[in-house]
Amino acid sequence: MGRVTVREPILRIRDGAVSERPDTLVAEEPLEIRMNGRPLTVTMRTPGNDFDLAAGFLVSEGVVTSAEAIATIRYCAGATEDGSNTYNVLDVVLASGVPVPEASLERNFYTTSSCGVCGKASLEAVSTTAHWSVAEDEPHFTVPVLAAMPDRLREAQRVFDRTGGLHAAGLFTAQGELLALREDVGRHNAVDKLVGWALRDGRLPLRGSALMVSGRASFELAQKALMAGIPMLAAVSAPSSLAVELAAEQGLSLVGFLRGTSMNVYAGRHRITLETASQTPMAAPG
Amino acid sequence: MGRVTVREPILRIRDGAVSERPDTLVAEEPLEIRMNGRPLTVTMRTPGNDFDLAAGFLVSEGVVTSAEAIATIRYCAGATEDGSNTYNVLDVVLASGVPVPEASLERNFYTTSSCGVCGKASLEAVSTTAHWSVAEDEPHFTVPVLAAMPDRLREAQRVFDRTGGLHAAGLFTAQGELLALREDVGRHNAVDKLVGWALRDGRLPLRGSALMVSGRASFELAQKALMAGIPMLAAVSAPSSLAVELAAEQGLSLVGFLRGTSMNVYAGRHRITLETASQTPMAAPG
Repeated sequence: MGRVTVREPILRIRDGAVSERPDTLVAEEPLEIRMNGRPLTVTMRTPGNDFDLAAGFLVSEGVVTSAEAIATIRYCAGATEDGSNTYNVLDVVLASGVPVPEASLERNFYTTSSCGVCGKASLEAVSTTAHWSVAEDEPHFTVPVLAAMPDRLREAQRVFDRTGGLHAAGLFTAQGELLALREDVGRHNAVDKLVGWALRDGRLPLRGSALMVSGRASFELAQKALMAGIPMLAAVSAPSSLAVELAAEQGLSLVGFLRGTSMNVYAGRHRITLETASQTPMAAPG
Repeated sequence: MGRVTVREPILRIRDGAVSERPDTLVAEEPLEIRMNGRPLTVTMRTPGNDFDLAAGFLVSEGVVTSAEAIATIRYCAGATEDGSNTYNVLDVVLASGVPVPEASLERNFYTTSSCGVCGKASLEAVSTTAHWSVAEDEPHFTVPVLAAMPDRLREAQRVFDRTGGLHAAGLFTAQGELLALREDVGRHNAVDKLVGWALRDGRLPLRGSALMVSGRASFELAQKALMAGIPMLAAVSAPSSLAVELAAEQGLSLVGFLRGTSMNVYAGRHRITLETASQTPMAAPG
């Protein structure tokens, strides 16, 4: 368990020169999350922070909103025929009275029974499932604070430096302080690990904070930010159309292409000020 | 339907200068794949090449291996209450005699009932499900041919240039000719679209070819290459440990960090030659 990296011999080719050398790879293993002993989902993830990953997944899917809703999380011994523990199967037991989700959990945010599968249905599913609204949460983020986030995130990424193979998700205060960082081969897992840590630390909803991700901003990541009560999502790369639609509808601030002193603001510009936090925020479009 | 990009007004910040401008976003919409009218899976994808996406997904999951195994694919009208077509729901009907998969399809490659969930079980699942072996397929790829692939892929990417938000997957011959390119917000979807195109064009197994992806090489992408009979997987970024294990076990060549004239060879080095295809390939490690 817990192997975050793996060493392997590789052939390295640089400008026609060939050499043998060991290389460090990011570990990828399946994790099965069970609920009360029944299989719920399987995800390919980097081992480590597995309890946080399971807890965050349940927040993202709208199953729990507080640490008290989870009675226990444990690795299943006996998942294999010989009774050994692979540390790749977790069983979550919900607290008494917390409704156990259906097996078809993953479809929750893609469809509703009333109107088929479409982007609009996905947006509606988030608005009916979200426990908190971020619309009234109005921290101000200055452009310099936002601009400093990618470097802060990268500096704090330990495993990426060795493997180049990990997505990162960081949680920042409005003053730019990095509260926590999680890494994973899957970007959705990195965010779930972060949100699960916050849940288990009694920090939900994450009012006043920003979620920064190393890759793109998809619908799924915007959904996860909203489910955790985070009012600002910033990404190094491009957002998708549905992520922007969801952010605009729910009052989530969405910043993309955050690189150096450059960024694009796709939604929720009222939380962004050019300089100090006391300055008047940027006006909404006329 | 078929909106690959969307125009939205954004706030652009460059070195403290703020401007309003329209921006082009990559479209993201849910797609539900049904089989004989029964929901099978939902994926967030960029609209376009949806039939190929569905067909390729079924190849990747081991359901079909030839175009004849699919009787029909069609968009479901009547998926919504008012009977309109969202173009986000597809129904696939398999040919008579082709076994209909279980609903728990997605767990196929993560686990087997005998040994719990672990990396080894995932590897075994691919070897028992794969219809073709790539081990005996021995095209030679020269370093210059491999080195030219990223630029060829990027040049052919139409939507990325406008949005910066898309993953690409390209299928190349051993001579470096680009046979087909597909783009999607999800990298697994880009590969499924490519494989589905090949299936429907009667090209499976894709012997002698290389699959090039714009991002990282995960277990899932190595699995998809193997299920389509592709002997070479090349990626711009890092592979994961399980992708390398799967490649080594199945005789798939795996190249990562393919940038300029540099690359790392993680598995299957016998298919790579420094110069001409007639040259002796690189020796296996001693």
